[in-house]
Amino acid sequence: MSEPRLVEVRRNVLKQNDVIARELRERFRQAGVFVVSLVSSPGSGKTTFLERTLTELQPRYRVAALVGDLATENDALRLARSKAPVKQITTGTVCHLEATMVQNALAGWDLEQMDFLFIENVGNLVCPSSYDLGENLRLVLMSVTEGEDKPLKYPTIFNSADVAVVTKNDLAAAVEFDWKAAQASIQAVRPGMRIFRVSAKTGEGMEEYRGFLTHQLAEKLHV
Amino acid sequence: MSEPRLVEVRRNVLKQNDVIARELRERFRQAGVFVVSLVSSPGSGKTTFLERTLTELQPRYRVAALVGDLATENDALRLARSKAPVKQITTGTVCHLEATMVQNALAGWDLEQMDFLFIENVGNLVCPSSYDLGENLRLVLMSVTEGEDKPLKYPTIFNSADVAVVTKNDLAAAVEFDWKAAQASIQAVRPGMRIFRVSAKTGEGMEEYRGFLTHQLAEKLHV
Repeated sequence: MSEPRLVEVRRNVLKQNDVIARELRERFRQAGVFVVSLVSSPGSGKTTFLERTLTELQPRYRVAALVGDLATENDALRLARSKAPVKQITTGTVCHLEATMVQNALAGWDLEQMDFLFIENVGNLVCPSSYDLGENLRLVLMSVTEGEDKPLKYPTIFNSADVAVVTKNDLAAAVEFDWKAAQASIQAVRPGMRIFRVSAKTGEGMEEYRGFLTHQLAEKLHV
Repeated sequence: MSEPRLVEVRRNVLKQNDVIARELRERFRQAGVFVVSLVSSPGSGKTTFLERTLTELQPRYRVAALVGDLATENDALRLARSKAPVKQITTGTVCHLEATMVQNALAGWDLEQMDFLFIENVGNLVCPSSYDLGENLRLVLMSVTEGEDKPLKYPTIFNSADVAVVTKNDLAAAVEFDWKAAQASIQAVRPGMRIFRVSAKTGEGMEEYRGFLTHQLAEKLHV
């Protein structure tokens, strides 16, 4: 196995990514847009959660979204129902977004006209963790149907995120979700991590999460 | 970006994997063991499904399992409740199993004493697709909670698998699962693919799936 060479090459790719991510972060800062990325396993409800977030923020905030998938424009079509500007990034066989992909997708968009930009990463609990996209805040989502020990099994991605969101809470009873065990798993991997518990279907928990986001934006603008 | 070099290095790693996978397949054939691997996104219910499979096959068949995760021995502990021999493979930051990992994990096990060996891959819908583990049959699982369009979004892994298993069918009504749409997605990516629809919680669909497996084993032994 040529592992050492593989690692070395990957390190260079990552370094290049960091350079572009830094440029992006500076652009976002200058434009005054607050950028939130979402990572999770496939099927944990990122798109439904994001669609509701966009719809709820829109009366008062200018929002937009980029959404990554290996294939299909399905998620962009779903998010477009919120009437927010949305672009799909299809990655082919690449299991994460990279800063260049974000940079390219932003071409033609005026960041000055946005309050929030959301970036939905490819559904994957491993690949996206080491790629900085220049975001201000990274959310890691896990649904109540996935099992309470996901953070222990995928510690790196939980460590790379700022906030955890437990989704599909409307199914909690049906799957006998153990909230205490889930909290303990998250805190074991990332002590002190803020956790939101939501259902994008019923709306439960969305107000608190929205309040958190708008507070973050306000704080950023005053720094 | 040094993409071309990265691709080249990865190709060599894959080639090495194929050599070992071929050796494994030959060992499995000589020992008369039928090897089934399971791939899916994290949280789609691989371990629960496998635990039930092991428990149900055991009265009449000799079964064993290897289970891959980045971290924790949780799944091996869960599967051990079935009383079958189980070994955990922890991959660190690697998002898939490789043939060498399987080879190493088999050390000390007598394949002649097995009818079925199950290999549960790391929960990931991208990374495992290109790594042959020498298995006879690859199952791709998707739960009813994940969204019917997963096959369209992750075509490669569905293409690399032989059979699809739709899991957590007990939750189908709660999530308004659209069975026709799910079937259409699978068939669009892999026309003619055999699909099982199960609930490892209620046992629904397990008998048909078990019958399929034992039929496969019988066919293999007679070839």
